[in-house]
Parts: sequence; structure tokens; C-alpha cells
Amino acid sequence: MINLGIIGAGRIGKVHAKSILTSGLPVRVKGIADPLMNAETEAWAKASGIDGVFLDHRRILEDKDIEAVLICSSTDTHSPISIEAIEAGKHIFCEKPIDHDVAKIQSVIKKLAETDLKYQVGFNRRFDHNFKAVKAAITAGAVGEPHILRITSRDPAPPPVEYIRVSGGIFLDMMIHDFDMVRFLLDCEVEEVFAKGAVLVDPEIGEAGDIDTAIVTLKMKSGALAVIDNSRKAVYGYDQRAEVFGSKGCVSASNDAPSTAVISNENGVLAEKPHYFFLERYMQAYQDEMLSFINAIINDTPTEVNITDGLKPVLIGLAAKKSLEENRPVSLKEIGA
Amino acid sequence: MINLGIIGAGRIGKVHAKSILTSGLPVRVKGIADPLMNAETEAWAKASGIDGVFLDHRRILEDKDIEAVLICSSTDTHSPISIEAIEAGKHIFCEKPIDHDVAKIQSVIKKLAETDLKYQVGFNRRFDHNFKAVKAAITAGAVGEPHILRITSRDPAPPPVEYIRVSGGIFLDMMIHDFDMVRFLLDCEVEEVFAKGAVLVDPEIGEAGDIDTAIVTLKMKSGALAVIDNSRKAVYGYDQRAEVFGSKGCVSASNDAPSTAVISNENGVLAEKPHYFFLERYMQAYQDEMLSFINAIINDTPTEVNITDGLKPVLIGLAAKKSLEENRPVSLKEIGA
Amino acid sequence: MINLGIIGAGRIGKVHAKSILTSGLPVRVKGIADPLMNAETEAWAKASGIDGVFLDHRRILEDKDIEAVLICSSTDTHSPISIEAIEAGKHIFCEKPIDHDVAKIQSVIKKLAETDLKYQVGFNRRFDHNFKAVKAAITAGAVGEPHILRITSRDPAPPPVEYIRVSGGIFLDMMIHDFDMVRFLLDCEVEEVFAKGAVLVDPEIGEAGDIDTAIVTLKMKSGALAVIDNSRKAVYGYDQRAEVFGSKGCVSASNDAPSTAVISNENGVLAEKPHYFFLERYMQAYQDEMLSFINAIINDTPTEVNITDGLKPVLIGLAAKKSLEENRPVSLKEIGA
Amino acid sequence: MINLGIIGAGRIGKVHAKSILTSGLPVRVKGIADPLMNAETEAWAKASGIDGVFLDHRRILEDKDIEAVLICSSTDTHSPISIEAIEAGKHIFCEKPIDHDVAKIQSVIKKLAETDLKYQVGFNRRFDHNFKAVKAAITAGAVGEPHILRITSRDPAPPPVEYIRVSGGIFLDMMIHDFDMVRFLLDCEVEEVFAKGAVLVDPEIGEAGDIDTAIVTLKMKSGALAVIDNSRKAVYGYDQRAEVFGSKGCVSASNDAPSTAVISNENGVLAEKPHYFFLERYMQAYQDEMLSFINAIINDTPTEVNITDGLKPVLIGLAAKKSLEENRPVSLKEIGA
Repeated sequence: MINLGIIGAGRIGKVHAKSILTSGLPVRVKGIADPLMNAETEAWAKASGIDGVFLDHRRILEDKDIEAVLICSSTDTHSPISIEAIEAGKHIFCEKPIDHDVAKIQSVIKKLAETDLKYQVGFNRRFDHNFKAVKAAITAGAVGEPHILRITSRDPAPPPVEYIRVSGGIFLDMMIHDFDMVRFLLDCEVEEVFAKGAVLVDPEIGEAGDIDTAIVTLKMKSGALAVIDNSRKAVYGYDQRAEVFGSKGCVSASNDAPSTAVISNENGVLAEKPHYFFLERYMQAYQDEMLSFINAIINDTPTEVNITDGLKPVLIGLAAKKSLEENRPVSLKEIGA
Repeated sequence: MINLGIIGAGRIGKVHAKSILTSGLPVRVKGIADPLMNAETEAWAKASGIDGVFLDHRRILEDKDIEAVLICSSTDTHSPISIEAIEAGKHIFCEKPIDHDVAKIQSVIKKLAETDLKYQVGFNRRFDHNFKAVKAAITAGAVGEPHILRITSRDPAPPPVEYIRVSGGIFLDMMIHDFDMVRFLLDCEVEEVFAKGAVLVDPEIGEAGDIDTAIVTLKMKSGALAVIDNSRKAVYGYDQRAEVFGSKGCVSASNDAPSTAVISNENGVLAEKPHYFFLERYMQAYQDEMLSFINAIINDTPTEVNITDGLKPVLIGLAAKKSLEENRPVSLKEIGA
Repeated sequence: MINLGIIGAGRIGKVHAKSILTSGLPVRVKGIADPLMNAETEAWAKASGIDGVFLDHRRILEDKDIEAVLICSSTDTHSPISIEAIEAGKHIFCEKPIDHDVAKIQSVIKKLAETDLKYQVGFNRRFDHNFKAVKAAITAGAVGEPHILRITSRDPAPPPVEYIRVSGGIFLDMMIHDFDMVRFLLDCEVEEVFAKGAVLVDPEIGEAGDIDTAIVTLKMKSGALAVIDNSRKAVYGYDQRAEVFGSKGCVSASNDAPSTAVISNENGVLAEKPHYFFLERYMQAYQDEMLSFINAIINDTPTEVNITDGLKPVLIGLAAKKSLEENRPVSLKEIGA
Repeated sequence: MINLGIIGAGRIGKVHAKSILTSGLPVRVKGIADPLMNAETEAWAKASGIDGVFLDHRRILEDKDIEAVLICSSTDTHSPISIEAIEAGKHIFCEKPIDHDVAKIQSVIKKLAETDLKYQVGFNRRFDHNFKAVKAAITAGAVGEPHILRITSRDPAPPPVEYIRVSGGIFLDMMIHDFDMVRFLLDCEVEEVFAKGAVLVDPEIGEAGDIDTAIVTLKMKSGALAVIDNSRKAVYGYDQRAEVFGSKGCVSASNDAPSTAVISNENGVLAEKPHYFFLERYMQAYQDEMLSFINAIINDTPTEVNITDGLKPVLIGLAAKKSLEENRPVSLKEIGA
């Protein structure tokens, strides 16, 4: 039986807790910590069989029975808690991004390198059934040599402007998932980035120093090209698609919807909208990434999304940011990658 | 250069004329006859390069230059004009059905048997790109041995009740196309028919002695089962689908629409309705059946839909009628088939 | 906290147990009984927190703490155990069918009528997201007055012939779900049934006295028509579709697949097959029917699939059987409905 | 009756001739000229009722009966023949591009401005049923304010390298259609272009000084962003899609296929490939652009694709070329637009 601790009892911490509780694996959540722990969450934890409920995450780190921790706290705490957890000898599952600051990520990498601990980053979309099927098709050679990758990734509604201000910007907050997807699907590193952005959804986002609409073109080391489009607001729901085109064919994944029902009437043929947002669309992926992490511990195998996978998208995001600011393509080398 | 004459200058006669005029084959329409010929149609004929415009179809039959005729007049005239045309030594393309009276069709068959003339019946759907693709898949073995055939065939709106009264009823007027499709797709004869009907669209249709909604189950000589559903009114347009399920798979054809455009918004994901009715859906099929007829003459090959193909669906339709009246399955043998 | 007991520890009993364990509702499985209980199942039960593991289901019925039982044992035991459970004052969730013998079901109904106990029958497909969406569209008036219902229901592979022999035949074993779906979607009773069947999949099924391919036409009391096709073997997986056509439109539900990935190459455009079988397709439905049952107990509301819903499809199935034997439409009145 | 002359008797000249011959409009093709006129084409012309067959296009221009000419000759002759035709007082339909040299196009514009002659450029895709439906949805407000336009445009196979050498490069030869589509769909001018290209299909194309794979990002004057991807080789056929995403929704058009038939078997669910290439996909569009041109003459209305529409995509193409060479975004102002 493996004991886990969860640091951060927000929405995503609870999602992971539930995945663990229903995993059927010999694992349990022994403690959960959050500086903003409230009575409701405490009641939920107790009802879920989580005995330790704390304000201070160090209570988790100090528990010798706990082998692994899930870092689901606010982004600015990811890297310091990672380091503390490594020092405490815990395996780590860390939500993305590890940090917006490359130097801080490098510190975690360095500290981790001195140990045999597992480290998995929360790029959950790699575990989505649709994107996994795209990856499997590529790996099976169904598209031959990849030439063009297109990703569309649009949120149903922007977060509050207060969040936008501290988010690190659209490239580090939202498109970072897509940068990871590019690396995952093409199994190749990015060489150069060109970003174009606009404020079309809400002028307040612009006033907060960010953009809400973006198209980023990536040149891969293999020579392949990739393009990502992001919008903070798709009125029809969460739009998450990818397509890889290559020498032997093309593989595309489209959205999931609540049902396959289609109504034909005088107005046309109407199907359901895609799922509203990430919790609906990616619940299976959240569950599977947790299973993957636990299995990596049980079987002592490498994690499927390692700490380098946590670093690279941040570098790409920083290159995109610089590209947008200077309106020119930026080589990853310029970012020190 | 083959000279053709058209008997019946209604909508479908004009459709065929246009198919011939744009066929690119060495063929021309030398005359057209209709007892209701009007000035507008006459002007159209002249503008289309059709020199002979007549009230009496015998003017066409008497023309020694004319090798073949298209019988597009009212259903009750199909069999007598067929016989006159055979006597005049013309190849014949006859709109469906040849007649509602089996004895009259048998007379045409007998008369035709004494000649080498071509006879093609206007079951245009055999030439539809979708149903041809279904047939091709079956012929290629893609579904193995056929087990179940499902046909959905629904009109966008019922014809006038006056027409319903003389139509021969839904089985001979509307479902006759589907009976032909069953024979075409399964390459097999029908053994037994069970028909269930209802008046759900318009009570006036019931008062006219007909039904407007029907489900017919067919047992094929091969042992396969087929089911057809018809409705006189689908508010979303002309609904023409077929599916053949067998030991190795299933092949389905769905509807064509004016465009592939799809709109996603707050209300859902909206595609276009199917084409409104038969002229939109089957224009390519009408053109191709005419090419097929002309090529059968040019190359002296059998027509793709022969006179037996004209007889059989009438027999199935009569069996369906009897089945509905007596609420029991009716063997084709009872109809004298 | 509601205590439940499970009678029958086969595949479906375990599925229900898991649904309960992960429901998040104040409910637990206190005991499980199976005359064929083995060590593996016992270990699974213990690991799942089910304390009581028994050979004799009476141990469950005798436990005063247990408020409700799930009857997941073999079909022939459903009605006697139902009666015992009613006598023991337990709410009941019973897998379908309650029995093949109408008199036995009537006994259960009679016994139940003397109590306030809840009784839910395991017609899980009513809880499937696709069929629920079809039902919701009908209820919302999207198709107007229903005219035609088409159901396609095909298994990926036939069960062993030994099972076929005791199954009650395709109508009571397989199509019974579709008979329930007809009643559920159209919210209307069946008046008359006509069944046509064939042995096309495997001659051994015919030798066992059953058929493997069937088309059944139903006349509803509302005047609407319904048609169901079944096959014991669809090589492309579990095929579960429904379409309701009416005066204002048509609503259709198609299959779910493991992913939305589509590969375009020189051979065509290839999507995934539907899910393989019922556990993959209906897992969400199994979970939701259990939630529904538990909530009916917690909130003291009627169950969503009551004992009458358990009786009616059996009557329709018996009418279908008689129709097949006598090759004629059979009124439900003849079956004593 | 309007008399037309066709200059250039290659594939596309014949396509237009056929559109005119079957248009049903009071128009005829009086002459056709081609310096490479051969016996086969001459025979085709005669059979099509085209009396004048010439080597020298001036024979067409000199014919006082001819009101309009179709310039379907090689690209380098488009602008000089345009000027000659304007001088001869003929309305002009000119295949795209008018020229690769902006100054030459400007000369035609200047010359044309002195007349009332009609000038239409052969951007046929504006008449494609799918793209017209996308445009109609935008015009109807279905997507609100456009934010992102994505175009995918991939050929089934590259042209011969000899052609590549004189083609003007992928941006002026192939993507020029997509640049026109951007202007057509967004009803807005391009402000800035960033092009990224690669040689991934065939190294010989690179040796010929061109690329075969490209992604171009466009910033529109409205602030909207657009992205186009091109490949010279899609093994699954001609891939022509567009999607416009905006404040109120998204509209997408996908490919047409030869049929809607879908085969489900043990390997998956297989639909047909898109149409092979432009003649299959755009035949309806070619016909409709010709109808549009003839109607503009008959009704004395502006052409739907005017000479400015012929100039703009060339400017965008030149900007893309410069962007690729210098690996930086290029403003249209730099090109003198």
C-alpha cells in the first residue's frame, strides 16, 4: 500500500484525490494540506477517508509513511515545494507549469538529479483518449514522416482579469499545454517560434498586458512545421483538436460531446456542442495520468511526463513571448535552450 | 448520330432532354410530343435545338430517323405507348412504373421478346453515386454475405391528394423505388412481404384510401431480411438512406447536402439539411441513367435496368398492398410471381 | 448511510458494486452472496471493503442493517429471490428480465403491491447518455408527434450455444432491451408485433432452437410504428443505435467509439470502430442506474424503471416469439397484456 | 445572343467552353485560339459547335461579333493579351494570376479604367458551394466578429519540376487561391504576412528554388488573424478546408467526397477519400463562375471577382516570398500595397 499526500486542496487536488480513491490500485491518500483549508473541504476529506487534513504542507512532507506527493498548489509554490519534497525524499507529481522562471526549474532539475525519485508533470492531455490515438497512429507509421501539425485550442470563456494578470500570459498559462502536445505528438524539439497575437475577446485582457487570441508557428528540428491557434473564448465550448499531416496520410482528433444525438428539422441538422471545459473533456485523462504516476512508483519505471517535459514548454512559451514583443521569429537558442 | 424522341414534355421529360443535350455523346433529340404542349415548352424545345414539337406522340413513332424514344408521359400511358413503340421498332426508355397492372406489363414483355430492341426502366436511383457505392462495396465482398438491409426513404412533403387518388398507393408510387433498390443491392429476389401502414401525416390521405407512413419487412430468397420505412413528409428534406449489414461488415449511405459547412455556436453544431427533393438529390443519377441507355444503344449491350426489373417491383408492391389489407405476410407466389 | 447487499457476484454484480463504491453517496455494500463464491471474488470483496461474503443469499436477507438488495444472480432465480427479498422488507434492484414466465412476474408484482418497497429493473440503456439525449429531444418536442422509431441492436459475437439454449431465445434475451427502449422512447404501449427471423450467423444457433437475426415491427397504441433489427454478430463491434422520426423532425443516436481520431490515407478515411460490447458502451449507464436506484431510496421517490417496466417487455417478447412461430402479427392482447 | 471567344485551348479552356455550352444562357462560343492547336482539339471544337478554330488569338480579337474573351493561355501572356483585348473592346475573363509582375497588372488596371469593360479573374473557389456557405454564414452574422481564419489547402501531388521552375513559386502559384479566399471570407485586407516553408515532399522542388510545404500567418487590417497551410502532396487527395472562428461561433467547411458510403468492418469505419483534385472538387465552381461572368455582361453588373481582386493576392504572395527569404514578418506596405 502506497501512501500519498496532496498539497493544495483546490479543484484539481480534489480531482486527483478522487482518481486515486477509485483507482483500484494499492494506494491511499493519507493527508491533504492547504493554507486555505476550510470546513467544507475538511468534511469532504474525512468522508473520502483522508485522515490528515492540514494547513501546512510540511505536515505532509514530514510524514515518513507518505512516499509521494501531488503538488496542486498555486504556480508560484511549485518549484519551492518541489525542492522541499525532493529533500524529504518524496516522489512528486507536480501540476503544470513547474515555474515561469527557467532558473527555478533548473534548480529543481539539479536537485532531482541527485536522487532516484520520480517526478511527473501534469500535462494531462497526453493521456486524453483522442490525442493518445493520434500519437498511436503516428507511432504506427500511419502518417509517415510528419510535415505539418495543426493544433486548435480554445477555452469557452476567459478567466478573471485578476487571474490573467498573474498568469504569466497566454503562452505560459494556456498555450503551454499545446507546446507540450507539439513535443509529444511529433517526438521532436522546437527550433524556432513565431507568435502573432491580438486582443479581440476582451479589451480588459489587453489592459492587463496580455492577449486573448494567438497564432504561433513553430519550426521543428526535424524540419516539420507546426501551428497552434488559441482563443480565450469559444462560445460553443472547449475546442481541443489536433491534426498531424505527413508523407503517408493525415490523422485528426476532434472534440468529444455529451452525446451522439443529432436532431434534423426544418432548421438543419443539429448535433451537441463539445464538452464545456477541461474537467468534462479531460476527466479520463486526469484519471489516467494519476494511474500512470502511481504505476511508475509501483513498478519503478520512468514517469511518462518527466521534469524535462516540464521545462521545455516553458522555454517555448518564453520564446513565443519574446517573438510577440519583438514581432520576429525567435530561436529557442536565444532562450538558452 | 442517334436520333431520340421524347414522349411527355413534363418536368422529367425536360430533365432527360437536358441530360442528352449535354451528354457529349453523338445523340440528339429530334422531336418531343405532349398532348398538353404549351408555348413555353415549345420555346424551350426550340431553344434547345429540338426541331419537332408535337401534340401527338405518333408523330415521333412515325419518324424513321428516330431510333429510340423516352416515355415520360402519365403512368397509364406507359404500357400502351411501349407497345406502339415496340411495333414502330424503337428502343425504349420508360419511366417507372411500366404499369400498375401486371397483365399489361406482361403484354409489353411478350411483345418486346419478339424483337432485339433495348428497354430500360427509369429506376434512376440505381445510378445514384451513394447507392452505387453501396452496391460496389457489396460486390467487392466488403460486407460478406448480406443479412439485413435497411432502407429509409422519406419525401419532404406529400403530393396533392388528387394525385394520391390515382397514384396506385404508396407501395406502387413511392416504395416501388425501394423495392427496386432491395433487388439491386441484394441481387436477389423477394420471397415474402409484410407491410404495416398508418395515416399519420395527413388524414386526407387516409380518406383518399392510402396511407402515408409504412414499414415493410421483406424475406429474400437468400434468407436475408430487408426492411423499408417510408413517410410522405420529412420536414428536414428528402431522406434517402440505405444500409446493408452482413457477415463481414456493414455499408451505409447517408444523404447529400448542399454544402459541408457546419456552424458551431451556443446552440450546438449545425449542419445543412439534406437536399430538398429528388431533382436535387438525383440529378446526377438522372444524367447517368440516360448515358447508360444511350450507351446501351451505341454499343449494343443490355440495358442496366431491363423490363424484368420493371415488373418485379410492381409484384412486390402488389404483395405489400395485399399484406396491408389482410394484415398478414404475403408470399410473392400468391401474386403470381 | 444506507447498507446494500448484492446477490450474485458475477461480472454485473461487480460492476454494480464498483458503481456504489465510487458513487460519492452515503451508501455501502455490506455483503455479497453467491453460491459459486470463489477465493478470487472473496479477495476482491475484502479489498473493496465488503465485509460479508456468503454462499447463501439468505445471509444477506437476514441482515437487518441491509435496506436494499441487488439481484444479479441467474435469471431463473430473479423472481423467487425477489419474493424472498420483499418478504424480508428490502428494496430491490433486479437485473433484467425478472422472469420469462409472466405468472411468476405477476406474483412478484402482487407481493410488492402489499408494500412500499422500491423495485427497479436493470434496463440500463435508459440511462445511456445517447438514448437519454434522444428521449430528451422527444420530450422537448423536437420531433413533434413520433411516427417511426428505428432501433438497430447488434452484438459483436453470439454467446455460447449452451447459453442460447437456456436464454429464452433472442426476443427475451437480447431484443428485450429494445422492447424496453421502444416503450421508453415513445412513452407508449405496444399493440401488435410482427417478427421475422433467420439463422444466418451460425447454424448451431438454429439447431439450439433459436434464431440469430431478426426484424420485428411493432404497432404502438398511438398509431406510431417501430422496427427493431437484431443480429448476434456484428464484426465491427457493438452496434446500438436509435432514431425517432416525427411530424417536426428526426432525432438519431449513433455509437460511441474509443476516440475521435480519423486517419486519411490512400485507402480512405478511417475512423475507429464502436466500442466492443456492453461493458464498454454502457459503463456510464450502469453507474447512473445505480445512482438512480440509491437516490430513489434516499429521497423516497419512485424508481425510474419500475416493476411494470420489467413485465411489459417480457409480454412483447412472448408476442414476438408467437409471431415468429406462426408467421403472423400477434396482438399483445393475445398474450394477456 | 452573346458571342464569346476563348484564348487558350488547354484543359481549363475546355472546361469553360463546356460550362458555356451547357449554361442555358443566350451565349455561344464563336471561336477558340491556341498556338498549339492540334487536330484532336480542333475536332472537339467542331463537335462542340465552335466554328472558329485558330492558332492566333488575334483572330478572336478582330472578330467584331465577339463581345467577350476568356484568357486561358499561359500565365506570362495574361497581361499582354488582357491589354490587347481591352484595346479591342472585349469584356475579359482572365485566369489567375493576371501576372506575377505587379507593374504589368497595374498597366492592365490603368488601361481598363479608361473603359466600361467587365473584367473577371478566375478565382473559382469563391463559387464553390462549401466556401460560399461559409461566406454566407459570416455575412449572416453566424460567427459574429471574425477572430481567426484557418485554411488548409493541399494538392494530391506536386506538378512536374519543370513547371515548378516557371510557376512563380508556391505562394504565387498555389497559395494565391488561399490569399484570395482570406480576402473573400473576411471581407478585409491583409496588413502583414509571415511565411514559414520547408522542402519535405521532394528535394527536387528545393533544388528548383521552391518549397513544397508552407505555413503563412496573416494579420488583417481588422485585427483578425489568419493562417494558411499548404502542401504539394496529400496522399489522400485534394484537401480544401476553411474555418472562420469569431465572437459568436465558428463555421467550417470540409471536403467533398465521391459518395457518403461508409464501410464498418473489423478494421474500423471507412469513408471515401476527398475528390482527387481540382477538376473533381471545383467543377461546379468553374461552371458557376462562368455563369456569373456571362450574367455580369448580360445584366451590365459588376463582376464578382474584379481586377483589384486579381492584384491583391499577388501582392500578398510577393510579401510571403519576401518574408520567407528574410525570415521576418513583412508588411504589405513594403510591397507597395
